[in-house]
This record gives sequence, C-alpha cells and structure tokens, in this order.
Amino acid sequence: QWSTNPARNSSSRTYDELIPRHDNFADRHIGPRKTEIQDMLRTIGVESLDGLVNKTVPESIRLRTDLKLDPPKCESEVLKDLKEIANKNQVWRSYIGMGYHNCHTPHPILRNVLENPGWYTQYTPYQAEISQGRLQTLLYFQTLVCDLTGLEVANASLLDEATAAAEAMALCYRTNKRKKFYVDSKCHPQTVAVVQTRAEPFGVEVVVCSHTLMDFSNKDVAGVLFQYPDTDGSVEDFQELVQKAHAAKTLAVCATDLMALTLLTPPGEFGVDIALGNSQRLGVPLGYGGPHAAFFAVKENLKRILPGRLVGVTRDSSGNEAYRLSLQAREQHIRRQKATSNICTAQALLANMSALYCIYHGPEGLRHIANRIHNSTLILAEGIKSAKHELMNPGIFFDTLRVQSNGLGAGIKQQADNLKINLRHHADGSFGISLDETVEEQDINDLLQIFGCKLSAADIAEDLQRKGLVNSISNSQFKRKSAFLNHPVFNSHHSETALLRFMKSLENKDLSLTHSMIPLGSCTMKLNATVELMPITWPEFSAVHPFVPVEQAKGYLEMFKDLEEDLCSITGFDAISLQPNSGAQGEYAGLMAIMGYHQHREEHHRDVCLIPTSAHGTNPASANMTGLEVQPVKIASNGDIDLVDLQRQVEKYKDRLAAFMITYPSTNGIFEEQVCEVLELIHHHGGQVYLDGANMNAQVGLCRPGDFGADVSHLNLHKTFCIPHGGGGPGMGPIGVKKHLIPFLPSHPIVAMEKERRGGVVSAAPWGSSSILPITWTYIKMMGATGLRLATEVAILNANYMAKRLENSYRILFTGKHGFVAHEFIIELKEFKAIGVEPGDIAKRLQDFGFHAPTVSFPVSTGIMIEPTESENKEELDRLCDALLYVRDEIQDIQDGRVSVEDSPLKHSPHTAGVVMSSIWEKAYSREQAAFPLPFVKPESKFWPSVGRVDDLYGDKNLICTCPSMDSYGDYVDDEQAMR
Amino acid sequence: QWSTNPARNSSSRTYDELIPRHDNFADRHIGPRKTEIQDMLRTIGVESLDGLVNKTVPESIRLRTDLKLDPPKCESEVLKDLKEIANKNQVWRSYIGMGYHNCHTPHPILRNVLENPGWYTQYTPYQAEISQGRLQTLLYFQTLVCDLTGLEVANASLLDEATAAAEAMALCYRTNKRKKFYVDSKCHPQTVAVVQTRAEPFGVEVVVCSHTLMDFSNKDVAGVLFQYPDTDGSVEDFQELVQKAHAAKTLAVCATDLMALTLLTPPGEFGVDIALGNSQRLGVPLGYGGPHAAFFAVKENLKRILPGRLVGVTRDSSGNEAYRLSLQAREQHIRRQKATSNICTAQALLANMSALYCIYHGPEGLRHIANRIHNSTLILAEGIKSAKHELMNPGIFFDTLRVQSNGLGAGIKQQADNLKINLRHHADGSFGISLDETVEEQDINDLLQIFGCKLSAADIAEDLQRKGLVNSISNSQFKRKSAFLNHPVFNSHHSETALLRFMKSLENKDLSLTHSMIPLGSCTMKLNATVELMPITWPEFSAVHPFVPVEQAKGYLEMFKDLEEDLCSITGFDAISLQPNSGAQGEYAGLMAIMGYHQHREEHHRDVCLIPTSAHGTNPASANMTGLEVQPVKIASNGDIDLVDLQRQVEKYKDRLAAFMITYPSTNGIFEEQVCEVLELIHHHGGQVYLDGANMNAQVGLCRPGDFGADVSHLNLHKTFCIPHGGGGPGMGPIGVKKHLIPFLPSHPIVAMEKERRGGVVSAAPWGSSSILPITWTYIKMMGATGLRLATEVAILNANYMAKRLENSYRILFTGKHGFVAHEFIIELKEFKAIGVEPGDIAKRLQDFGFHAPTVSFPVSTGIMIEPTESENKEELDRLCDALLYVRDEIQDIQDGRVSVEDSPLKHSPHTAGVVMSSIWEKAYSREQAAFPLPFVKPESKFWPSVGRVDDLYGDKNLICTCPSMDSYGDYVDDEQAMR
Ligand SMILES: Cc1ncc(COP(=O)(O)O)c(C=O)c1O
Ligand SMILES: Cc1ncc(COP(=O)(O)O)c(C=O)c1O
Ligand SMILES: O=C([O-])O
Repeated sequence: QWSTNPARNSSSRTYDELIPRHDNFADRHIGPRKTEIQDMLRTIGVESLDGLVNKTVPESIRLRTDLKLDPPKCESEVLKDLKEIANKNQVWRSYIGMGYHNCHTPHPILRNVLENPGWYTQYTPYQAEISQGRLQTLLYFQTLVCDLTGLEVANASLLDEATAAAEAMALCYRTNKRKKFYVDSKCHPQTVAVVQTRAEPFGVEVVVCSHTLMDFSNKDVAGVLFQYPDTDGSVEDFQELVQKAHAAKTLAVCATDLMALTLLTPPGEFGVDIALGNSQRLGVPLGYGGPHAAFFAVKENLKRILPGRLVGVTRDSSGNEAYRLSLQAREQHIRRQKATSNICTAQALLANMSALYCIYHGPEGLRHIANRIHNSTLILAEGIKSAKHELMNPGIFFDTLRVQSNGLGAGIKQQADNLKINLRHHADGSFGISLDETVEEQDINDLLQIFGCKLSAADIAEDLQRKGLVNSISNSQFKRKSAFLNHPVFNSHHSETALLRFMKSLENKDLSLTHSMIPLGSCTMKLNATVELMPITWPEFSAVHPFVPVEQAKGYLEMFKDLEEDLCSITGFDAISLQPNSGAQGEYAGLMAIMGYHQHREEHHRDVCLIPTSAHGTNPASANMTGLEVQPVKIASNGDIDLVDLQRQVEKYKDRLAAFMITYPSTNGIFEEQVCEVLELIHHHGGQVYLDGANMNAQVGLCRPGDFGADVSHLNLHKTFCIPHGGGGPGMGPIGVKKHLIPFLPSHPIVAMEKERRGGVVSAAPWGSSSILPITWTYIKMMGATGLRLATEVAILNANYMAKRLENSYRILFTGKHGFVAHEFIIELKEFKAIGVEPGDIAKRLQDFGFHAPTVSFPVSTGIMIEPTESENKEELDRLCDALLYVRDEIQDIQDGRVSVEDSPLKHSPHTAGVVMSSIWEKAYSREQAAFPLPFVKPESKFWPSVGRVDDLYGDKNLICTCPSMDSYGDYVDDEQAMR
Repeated sequence: QWSTNPARNSSSRTYDELIPRHDNFADRHIGPRKTEIQDMLRTIGVESLDGLVNKTVPESIRLRTDLKLDPPKCESEVLKDLKEIANKNQVWRSYIGMGYHNCHTPHPILRNVLENPGWYTQYTPYQAEISQGRLQTLLYFQTLVCDLTGLEVANASLLDEATAAAEAMALCYRTNKRKKFYVDSKCHPQTVAVVQTRAEPFGVEVVVCSHTLMDFSNKDVAGVLFQYPDTDGSVEDFQELVQKAHAAKTLAVCATDLMALTLLTPPGEFGVDIALGNSQRLGVPLGYGGPHAAFFAVKENLKRILPGRLVGVTRDSSGNEAYRLSLQAREQHIRRQKATSNICTAQALLANMSALYCIYHGPEGLRHIANRIHNSTLILAEGIKSAKHELMNPGIFFDTLRVQSNGLGAGIKQQADNLKINLRHHADGSFGISLDETVEEQDINDLLQIFGCKLSAADIAEDLQRKGLVNSISNSQFKRKSAFLNHPVFNSHHSETALLRFMKSLENKDLSLTHSMIPLGSCTMKLNATVELMPITWPEFSAVHPFVPVEQAKGYLEMFKDLEEDLCSITGFDAISLQPNSGAQGEYAGLMAIMGYHQHREEHHRDVCLIPTSAHGTNPASANMTGLEVQPVKIASNGDIDLVDLQRQVEKYKDRLAAFMITYPSTNGIFEEQVCEVLELIHHHGGQVYLDGANMNAQVGLCRPGDFGADVSHLNLHKTFCIPHGGGGPGMGPIGVKKHLIPFLPSHPIVAMEKERRGGVVSAAPWGSSSILPITWTYIKMMGATGLRLATEVAILNANYMAKRLENSYRILFTGKHGFVAHEFIIELKEFKAIGVEPGDIAKRLQDFGFHAPTVSFPVSTGIMIEPTESENKEELDRLCDALLYVRDEIQDIQDGRVSVEDSPLKHSPHTAGVVMSSIWEKAYSREQAAFPLPFVKPESKFWPSVGRVDDLYGDKNLICTCPSMDSYGDYVDDEQAMR
C-alpha cells in the first residue's frame, strides 16, 4: 500500500506513527499506484508531479499554499459524521404537495437502479450502440408521458417542473415571437417565479391572473400556462380557454400531474399544445427538492423545436431496430446564440426510474394507486367538511384540498406540529393538504384529528359509499375514458423476478464505468465512490419535502453551509449558490447575476457577451437566454484565444461589454498563459468574467478562478465533484461568485434563503437537487487539501501520458507553452478525411475494443477529445492507447492502399455478436480482427455493442419517439418484436 | 393487475373497498399472472388450483384450514415494522472477541457483492462453465487461507469456527481411528462445546486441559487442538507440542486468526496438520453470529479427505484453464453412511467477500490494519498495567488482553456500561478485551478511562516508543518472516475503480437469477425479494456481537420468537431451534435430539436409522455422525418407498430402531400416499421420524409434517423461505420438533437460551446465522397464510405444467396416484445412454440456451430433476420447455442416424463466444445452431459460458487448489495469464 496522503504520516505525534489513519480515500479514488506514477513521469520526461504542474499551469496563477479544508476523513469516519448531520433533519409526514409527493420507490428499482453503478455511472447515450438499454428505457418514459398526457411527442426529461414551464414559455415566444405570456394564478408559486425570471430577459411580459380573466382578443399573447389539477387541488375545465387561445393563435400549456392523469381526461384530449410537470411521484424520492425528472410533451407540429433530449427509433447497419438521441443538433449545438434553451444535462436516471415504476405497476397498478389516493382525499374532504371547515376547492379534486379553517388556524397548526405533520400554509391562513401513495388509514385519521373531526376514516367511508361518491372523478365529466400504457412492456414485468431480469437485460446493454474507462473530454468520468453514494438513500436526506420549514432541515442547511465554505475555499469565490441543477443552468444563473449587477449599477447599456468560438454550445445559449448579444471571439492557431481579435472586439463593444465567457483550462485542453491579461482586459472595460468551470478538474488545488480574475463560475458537480452522470443526469451546477455579485444570486419565493440574495429564481427547489450534494460533501471531506491536489496532478499526468504515447501516431492538436496538455487533449483527425475516414468511424471502432469513444467533434469538429481523469490507472490508459494505435494502423492500411476504405473494419464498426457469429462472413478481414483485435479483448469478458452502427439520418427523417401502442396484448409478446 | 390475495378485497369494511391495500407482495413473489394460471391449468387438464391440490396431496394429510399467521403486510409496512423491532437491539461497542470482531466491510464490496442479486442469487457452482467468476474468487479465498496459514490446501469454507474444529476432530479420528482428542483449555468455549457434542457419538473422548499437561506417549491420541493466539490473547509457542504430537502420530490442529497471521509465524511453519478459524473479520459484518465463512486448511497429504467444497484448477474442452469444484464425490455423496462430515451448503458469499477484502487491501493493506490493531492493543495494555491492573497474558499478544482487576470489577463493568461498551466477562471476574480494525483513538481512550488509567493513548504511545515496544510481535520470536498474497490478484485492484471492474467482470461470468430461471430440483431457486434482503445490512442487525448480553438483543429475540411461532404454525411443530446453519446441520441436530430422547428414556439399544436409498447424501452422513447405524430402505418402481422392504427392515431392527428419515414430498417429486401408514409403522416400533424438509416448498399451507407424524424436521430457509443461495451459502437449517423432543434441542455454553433445552451445541453462535433471519421473517409476514398457500399451489402447478409439456418427448420418471407430480419432477435419460448421450450432455447443452441445468444425477443417477418454483412465470417455463424439446430433437437426430453422436452439438456444448466466433469452424452444425438455437437466444442479450466444458477428471488427477504464487509482480500481469 502506498500513501498518497501525507496526512497519514505527517503528524508529529508518536500515536499517529504507531497507529496511522485507517484508510486513505485518495488511494482508492486515484487510479495509478506510486510506481505507475513514477513510470508515467519518466515516459513524459518530467521528474515529479510538481515539475509537471510547473510545466502546465501558468506561474502567474499558481496557488502557493494548500487549500484550507478539514484534514481528510477515513471512509468509515465520513459516514459517521454525515449521519450525525443527517440526523439533524427531521423527517415529518409532509402533505405540502406543490408538485412534490411522498411515494414508494419499488425496492427492486431502488437497489438495482438507483443504488447500482451499472446504471448510475453511465454517460449520456451519445454512443447509441452501447447505450441501448437506457435509450430503450427513456423511450418508455417518453411513451408513458405521451400516453398519460394524450400528446404526441415527449422528451426524455427536463430539470424540474418550473424550468419546464419556463421552457414552454420560451418555446411559445420562439414560435410566434409575441411578448406576452399568461400564467393562471392557480399555478404553483415556484413555477410562476421561474417563468417570470426566465421571461424577463426575453422582454416577455408575464401576466399572472385567473384564467377566467384572460383576454386573447389582441392576438398578442404567445402562450397561456395553467395547471390541471391546480395548485389548490381543483380540477377545472380548460377546454374553452384552450379554444379561445387557439382562436388567437396562442399556444396552450398545461402543467399537470401524471398520477392524476391516470383518472383524468388527459390535456391532449382538450387540445393543449404542451403538457409538462414533475414525474417525481412515480417512484423517485423527494430528496429535499431533487433530483427528479420533469416531463415535457408537445403536439406533433412542435416536435422539432422541443427542448431537451429526445430518444427516437431508427435502424442499425443490419437494418435492425435501434434507439438513439434524435435531432441532436437542433438546439444549442447549432443554434448557439439563437437558442432559447440551454438544457444539456437532464435527469435521465430519474426518468428511467419513473419509467420502470410504471413498467412494474402497469396501467392497472397505477390506477390502483391513483384510486387509493383519490378515495383517501374524498374521505378526508368529507371529514373536514363535517368538522365545519370550509373547503375552498369543493368541486372536483384529485389529491389536494384547500381548507379555510375559520379562525381555528393556530390550533390546527399546533395539532399538526404535535403529530409531526406538515401542511401547506397559504398566505390567507388556509391550509393545503396533498395526499399521496404512502398515505395509510392512520395517516388519514391523524389528519381528521388535526381538523377536529370526530369521525374516523372508516366511518366516513361508510357514509360516502351510501351517498354515492358524488365528488369522485369517476362520477364527473373529467373521468378518463382513454386507455393508456397498452404497450406490452407495461404489461409484462409485474412480478419482481420478471422486473429484475428485465432491468438487468437493459443494464447489460449499456457500457458504464463498471466496464471500462469513458474517456470523454470535458465530461470527467471519474470514480463515483460507493461511500459517496450511500447517504443519498438515507431517509433523513431522501424523504424530506423541499418546502418544509427550514427548522426541519437543519442537517441539510449545515451540510450546505459546510459545502459552500469548502467550495469557496477551492475556487477562491466569496459565496456559492447551490440552486442551479446543471452546468448550463449555472451559466444562466451566473450571467443573470452579472446582469443584475450591471442593472443595479444602472449600466443598462451593457448587453454584449464575448464568447470564444471554441466554447461549449451552452455558453452562447445561456447568454442569449440572459438577453445578451453574443459576439464570438476567434481562436488562434495554437488553440488559445486570439488576443488580437479579442482586443478588437473589446474595443468595438467597449461601451456595451457586459460579460466575457471563458472556459479554463480551455476547451482545447490548455492552460492559456495569458489568462490574467485577458481577464484584466475585460475588467478594464467594465466587463464581468464568467468562467465555465467544466474543466475545474484541472484546477482544484493548483489555482483558483476567484484568484485570477473570474467574477462568477459554475462547478459541474457531476464532473469534478463526483456526482455520477446517471446516463444523462442528474447533475448540479452551483455557481461561485465574488462578493459584489452576491446580492444577485438566486432567491426563492417560498423558502427564505440568505436575505442578501435577491436574484431571480432559477430552479423549483431552493437548493436544487439537494439530495445528491452529500456526494460532493463526502468527496471533499475524504480527500482533503492534499488528496484533492494530488487528484488534479494525476488527472494532468494521465492526460499527458496518453498524449505522449499517441503523439507519434496522431496529431495532438494543441499543447501549452512547454509542450504539455492540461487534463485532456484533442486529437485532430482532419487529415484522414481525404481517405474517407471520419472521427465517427474511429469512435465506433473503439467500441469493438470495449471502450466508450472520447468526445467526438467538440470543441473541434474534426477531432476527438480525450480526458482520462485521475481515477484510471496506467493499465487502463495503456489499453486505450493500444486500441487507438491499433486503429491508427488500420487507417495506415487505407492510406497505404493495402485496404480499401469500404473494406476496412473502421467502416463496419461496431461489430455485434450477431454479425461476428453469423455463418455468413464476407468481410475483407477476419472475425477475430473484427471482434478481438487485441489480446485484452477476450471472448469471455468482452462488452458487446447490442446493435450495429445506428443510422441517425434515417431516424431524424422518420421521427418515431414512442413505442407503438398495441391493440391487444396479454399473451407473451417480445418487446423488441412488438416495437418493430 | 390481479390479486392473488383475497385479503385485499375480503374485508367487510367499506374503507377497505374504497382504499384497498397498497400492494400485495404475493403478486410480486409469484411469477404467473392470473391468466397464465388459467392457461396452465387448462393445459394440465385441471379446473382449479384446489383441484390440482386434491390430485397431488393425499387427502389424509391435507390441511383443512388456513395457517394461523398475521394478515399479510405491504412491502412498505413490513420494513417499518421490522425497523421498530430492530431498534430494540442496542448497538454497543463490543470488545468481546472470541472469534468475532468488528470490521469495516469495504463499501464497494458491501454494495456490489453483499447487496447485489448478481452475486447473492447464484447457486453452488456445480455448473462450472457458467460459474467461473465465483469459482475464481473462491480459489482466491483458498489461496489467501493457504498463504496466511502456511498450509498447502484449503477448502472454500465451512459454517463456523466451532464446527470447523469439530470437522478437524472428525478428520483426525477418521485418519487414525484413535478415540481420544486433546483440546487445549485456552480454546474458545463455544469451540470446545461443539467439538464435545460432535465427538460423543463417535465415541471419541475429548480431553480438555492445558497443552502443557498433554501426554502423547500412549499413542492413543487422534489429534490435538490448540488456539493461536489463544482465547485469552496469548501467543504461545506450540512448536514443541506439535513435535511431540507428531512423534506419536497424533495430528496437530491449530485454531487461528487470519488477521493475526499477517504478523505472526503461520502455523504451517511450525508443523501443524490442520489450521482453521473464522474469516469474518476480513470484511464480513458480525450479524449477531453470522453468517461468515470458516476456513480449513490442511497439509498436502490430507487434501483428499478435507471436508467441504474445494475449488480446483483444470482445463476446458479447448485446453484453456478453468475452475471447478474438485473431488466432488469424495464425502457424503459417495461415502453416505461412512461419511464423517455432512457439510453441504457452506458460506460461499461470505468467503467471496473475505477474498475480495484481501484483494482490495492487498498484503500491505492487511499488514497496515493488523499493525494498527496490534499497536492499539500494546497501548491499551500499557495503560491498563499503569493503572495497576494485572495483565493475565503479559507475554506476546496480538489484539486481546485478559485483565484481572483485583476487586475493582464491578466499577469497571459499571463504567463500561455507562459508555455502552461490552467487554468479555470471564468466570473468575477478569475481563477480556479484543481490539479490532474499527478501533480509533477515542475508543482506546474510553477503554483506558474504564480501567481508571489517567494517561491518554497518545501519552502512552510516546512512552512506549521511548521504551522500544518490547512486547511487540515484531520484536518477538513470533514475527512473521514469510511473504504472503504475492499473487498479482492481491496486488492489482487497490483503487476502487479497479476493484469495481474486477468484481463486475467476475459477476458477469456467472449465471444467477438475474439472468434466467435456475430449475434445480430440490434446491428451490425462487425469488429472493429485495425488500427481504434490505434489513440484513441495517446496523441494528449487522453490527451486533453474538455474545452481547441478551438485553442488548431484544429486537433479535423478539424476531426469533415471532419467527419460531410462525414456523411452528406452518409446520405443526411445537418448537423450533434456530441454531443449525444449514440443512445438513439441521439433520444432525434433529437426529441428536432423537438420540437424546432415546437415551433419556434409557433406550440405549436404539441405534439403527432406516433411510430410503433415494435420500440425499447428507441424510446417511448425518446419521453416521450421530452414531447411528444406517440401514437402507429400497425404493419401489413407482418411486415410493418399498413398503415390503420397509416392513422387513422394521421387523429386522425393531429392537434397535432409533429413527427413520424420510424426505417429503419424496426426493422423487411425489407426495407418497402411504406416508401416514409409513410413519405410524415407525412409531409403532418405537422409532422416531425425521422428515427432511428440503421439499417444504410443496407443503406450506397444504399440509404440515407435525400433523402427519414427523417428530422432527429441518427447514432449509435457503430454499422454501427465500434466503438466497449466495453461490453456495449462506443457509439456515432450523429444526422443528414435537413437544417430547424440546429438551433435546441445542443449547449454548455462553448465551443463556431457553432453559428447558439441554441438547448439545451444534453451532458457534446460539441462533446460527441470525442476521439473515429477517429474510424469512419478512417473507412470511408479507405473504400471510393465503399468499403462502398460493405460492405452494403455483409451485406445484408450474412443475405439472412443465411435466405436461415435456411428457411426450421425455420420460417423466415418477408421478403420483392421479398422474401428477409435486413441485418437481425427474426426467429419466437412461435410454439415451445407448447412443452415447449422458445427462451431463443435456445439462451442458442447456447452457447454450442461457439456462442453468436442472439437478443432474440426483436422486436418480441417470436423470435430471426440474423444480421451477412459483416465482417463474409461464413465459420462462415455456422457454425452458422449448429448449428441452429442441435438445430432444437433437437427440432424435442421433437416434435416427442423421447425426453421429460425436458430431452433435450435445457433445460440444457449451459453446463459448471464443469458439463460435473463431475463423475456424469445423463443426457439423452451424454457428447459429450452436449459439442461437432458438429465437429467444439473441446475440444482444445472450448469457455466454466463459469456458468450454470443463475436464473434471483431469482436474481431480492434477489437483491444484491455489493460485500459483509469483516470484515477482508489480508490472501489470493479467490474472488469467498469471495463473496458467
Ligand atoms: C465546457 C462545458 N460547459 C458547459 C457544459 C454544460 O453542463 P451541463 O451539461 O451540466 O448543463 C458542458 C457539458 O458537458 C461543458 O462541457
Ligand atoms: C433433500 C435434501 N436434503 C438435505 C440437503 C442438505 O441441505 P444443506 O445444503 O442446507 O446442508 C439438501 C440440499 O440440497 C437436499 O436437497
Ligand atoms: O500497494 C498498493 O496499494 O498498490
């Protein structure tokens, strides 16, 4: 055992010498052993890690001291300490509703998906051939959303219900360019707030009023948003409203509840254009706000401008059905500064959990659950009325009541507190109560008692039955008549054995970090350690409603504070906002803070944002969403920002300069030497600096954005800070800011946060996806300052080692002043175009070696970008290098005319087991070359792509984004068959 | 959704009609849906499940009422209720030692092995080709045991340290037939007790005394057992003792501690013949007694009589290295009534965890941990001495101290209680303290405080360092000089990423219930539901030492009591003993109770046990271990017990008749009609009836052994009651008895159990593997009486459906009076021998379809036995039937002369990916027929055997049971390569 962490031995106490720390987490997190590090240093010709840092990180920004963090904790300690913090949260029964509901995560899904690295360590399914399992599951998610909402096309998740509503607003605005947007006053308040925040930079006026007062006659309304059932619980008839809106070419947007829709007429059937909401109650824990998957469904005619990821059906090279992300290039990737959405990382893992929840329960099971909830609510309503309270939604409701207690409010609250029950407290003193899947008889009786009802739930049930359940949905005009979830997949896996095998078969189609490295540049696919993941399913973290009184969330608040301090220490910023749920959302929140600052200083003329052309597509998209005019800055031939062009642009826009966005180290994988000068230049002209922190993995412990000139920066906690990618989310994109921007950090309409923060609202929940923050907290606590620094050094070493091994065979596009790269590097493949070899060919060929491709065509369209991270050891790096070198030889065969490009394995990759094992083999190369090109690819352990190369064009032309519904089922129908 | 459980609807309350139960676990546990059940009933020509029961279970024994059990609980309720019970356990810090130690289960192993159905639902690796992952891991276990003990051959686990010691005693006795066995008085008391119990029936006299007093001069001593370090903590020099023993041809047996052996000279180096102990502290939770894996290592010359399972290296059909269980037939399987061991189900899952723990830590990591423990103990010893207490083991110790407190005992105990710390209390008032991996500075300081030491651990450390650590092992003659765990596998996977991928690659080689059904007759591979498994890793269950005062285990005791009542209710017995850790151990404990009863009645002449020839090999083995003479009873041609032969035998042995062992329904898969008469006959002649409960899955809710004549019976909780098989254990084999046998149930030397029980001691822990009992508890609570009965009915239906589908193509060997089978059935394959097709060929060919073979050659050597269980749905049964019918066609091809037997796929199965994908294909059939014989076997989801057919003979001849150690390592060495 070697110790990376001097803490183990550096103490002066004899005790620590005799009894050193139990374990050193850095040894587990960092892949290479000491001897491997020495080997690799030798290979790249540097004497030490310090020496390497000196040659990569500009002197001017280098940190001279250790980060100020607690001494590293052992794995065993960290859970004990965090449990103590968690215990400060109080898990009351919450009936607050507002889009968040208690539910039962089916245990097989909890253990085999949420707690399973085979699912949670996957990346976004860009490489479709090795991602069919989750693509298929996300297609089920889309299908269930379409089925339940009655709409034609749904995406595979947005970040939360409120941002989904904001996306809808933006979509309406983009569609008809009108600058007014109606929001019914009975929408959830956090939804209203996020829509308002998002609308402002577009210049869209949000009018919040009762839908009964809405006037469309001016034909100036972009869209109308209403909620069904509404925030008070009422189910209203919106048919007429929709008709009026449509008559005026206004789009109708319905925020809704998938559970309720199992009983209610779906919005698609009364004409809405867009339906959206939160799928959390379909089996995903509350988590004090997240993560959960928002859904978003549209009519057929809107499908090509639908924000977010969309899984579609296509065919593979053998003509077999295959799934993949459709219309990939349609939003921020190509539209950049014209994009009205910047959604990138979404909530794939949670969408998959919800899909599996529906698969496990099936349509009858879901109706069973919904009926239990509804009938419980009917009983509660009767009881409350019988106790002489006034029901403010006396008509039809699904699961939520609003009760005016006529002066008895204080007593009711006291009673509720005594029983550790949270109700919703409306401003007018009335109470909201939302029931859910977990409510049992005793819970109803407790609620009845709180409201002073003398009858028991059982008594009321007798009564109601006698009276005929007049208020029941099934006796109302809203009763759902259409079937849903008819597809066999929702009707085949209802025993646990069947579900388990189905989930395993999906998991086994997908390459994850449990198989091999995922060298995606910019994505930082490092270890997501088990110990980090364990706390997120502790009930003290997972079973807390986001809007409980903060006194019940003391554990969370303590952890937030501690984490914010640590992140400040790591970044050099003065404050952190944990609200943004993704990197892109962090960009938006950060730019909003910058704009808030300018506006506060009355510098309203500042409206230009300079962004290097090499920036990630979310940068210009976020800038556009903030109302900024994006001006691109050129990149010099060495990969750095073109200083001359920058100077010119700054001059040109000096009066209007609002912000400059820079990714550091650059998306080109280089620590630009002139970063200080660049940022000074911006500041000198009154601009603010947004530093995209996606590459923070190369900085932690070596330099701090807050020290060298950044005003604000997001941190992708799902990159540098170990939150797993979940196959395309969840993520977290908190932002750090310098002091002057603190007042413009996000606030929240419901939960009182730090008083000085008065920025807009960017997420539905005050601290975003709170329940995954323990991952980052434990990571930092276990690594400590020395561990974190070492991780960064090894990340840089690993990248340089790979670059070194490849440099004689491939063109390493950019290197720094001393010839070294940062933590990632680009291989330029342009020269192979001449012989017909595309970057995609190389990416697909790597699958035959059991590897996930590096990032393709970002930031350089003709290149691939490799980021090994510190968690991979030398053996694994060598395997990937060997594979890339083998591929290079295959390219050389074409270049030298030994093999024609059509005959090359490069063009037929990836090779499936079906192809390689077929009797018919007419390729110009052997089966072995196809499937087992190097000795480490072994028949007994090879990871096989489950389909051949997918045909993106075909799929985008023939867009199919749900499973076809079946007329009949019941007998066994093979899923794959059925979907053909 | 259909509801199996009337409870959902049968209530008369309107409430329950409006709001039925949330979920019905029986719907999840039982595979077939209602419509499938109807279909299957139609196929077998029976109108209803009741009708089927009437045609299979003899009227005379049929239960007329529902079982008396609690109403079924929902999944959500059951965890809540169990948590309440669990909370009644108090988790104190325990320093009791005695072979049980706190430890840290590495989190990646916890989550990815112990909590992963891919590992825990595997069966014993009898089908080697689809079990290479765990075979490989068990080989590592054997290797680490050999390395650490310094011996040549180790098995892959026994049930616990005490039974391992008893096995050693039996092995010594078997080797030299001497009837005296020495046990050093410093062995753990539970070890002594189990050895004494086990020795008695053999007529072996156990002499417990100090090793200094042992006299071997009479050459009448079979073996000598001593402990190193001993139960007080002392490390003694046993070299001379071993020499003396050997001079007298007495075998030397050393109970030892693998953690201590990382620092101490291993027993193999001072000549012992056998070393044994508990591997629990290598990463396995305490679990209030289990499960954990005992180890057992011997010198080369004893390897062929080593009890338990032994993994060995051999080659496969392509000449590649492969692993499999060696010398399979060497113990109870062939020796039956001559066997001195009956070990069958062992502790594979826990052995694998311990192996992975060592792989993760490596030799340096283990030494690091051991040194921490040892140095902590040195510090504690100094502190205690400085506080003027007397150290009773003042010489060399590893982790344990014995302290005479000179009259201050009560105060010390009080102090310890105040701090919630458990010490060991010796009868003489002295204290035992054993430190472990989890001990931190504060723990030592607390212990110092308890003993009134004014110095802190840190102070003492300074002192000690100055004085030179005179008592340290490293400064003593005992210091280990030999290296260990040199094999690359123990030196390659020290980062979590590397470990995770290694574990996944092992898991993915093994077929488990996550892939497809495992139709092993007699083994009952049913669903192990997630909800059942979750509680076992709750700290309230997992972190309790087995010898804590029972007041701290109130939750456990409540659960035991409740479970015993439920099991009594299910079986009709009057009491249950939870002590036996496996079915075989249950047999032994049950027969011991019978013998206790006879002896109590002074019927010492009763010494014959009648056992049908179709019985499982453990039956005669257990009988032999109980001192009974086994007389076989013939089986009639219809598969029933041959009544004439039985009558004859009963007559012949009527004075000596002690017991009759019967498996019911029979191992032949039939409810014998005459069971009542048979049992009456036995009773009439003064015999007692032992009913082997392996087939209880066909009885629960339909009939009760206690009602129709059984006096005692074991229940394999790892069959009928949902404990997963873990790849060959853990298991639990509690026994139920009628009232008259209660006094003869197992007792315990340390923990006060029910006073009336005064039988021998069969396990080290009072309630066996307590921590897995929640699995059975939750299963029964969730199923309730109706669910359990339905499960049994569907188990019988599934078997009959399969038999029906196969009966025209295969010979179903036995059916009952009405032509139906019970829950399993035998296919007779004898007729295919003529054309050269063996049962094994069919078993291996099924692997090509992704199936685990049925039970091969038991109970009929020329047959296979299929048990589908209730958890498999019709689709899966149909797939297996289709596969078997396809295989039948392949047999027909040979029978009809279309294909020669050598050319048949049957003989070349299973086909690996390597073989099928090779450029060279010279088989008489196509690649597709080989690998994808039916449409449901698909390239994208096929489960591949990782080696071709293994060569058992070769392996047994060239027995290699450890990984060869390497002279050098450090650079990457491929494991598989290295082991060649
Ligand atoms: C450089 C860069 N910026 C921003 C983002 C957007 O982050 P997110 O996906 O978390 O929204 C990414 C994502 O890959 C990125 O690589
Ligand atoms: C009929 C029968 N009896 C006894 C046993 C022994 O049980 P165990 O393996 O739990 O020791 C078995 C095990 O398969 C069995 O099938
Ligand atoms: O010794 C090592 O931990 O690699």
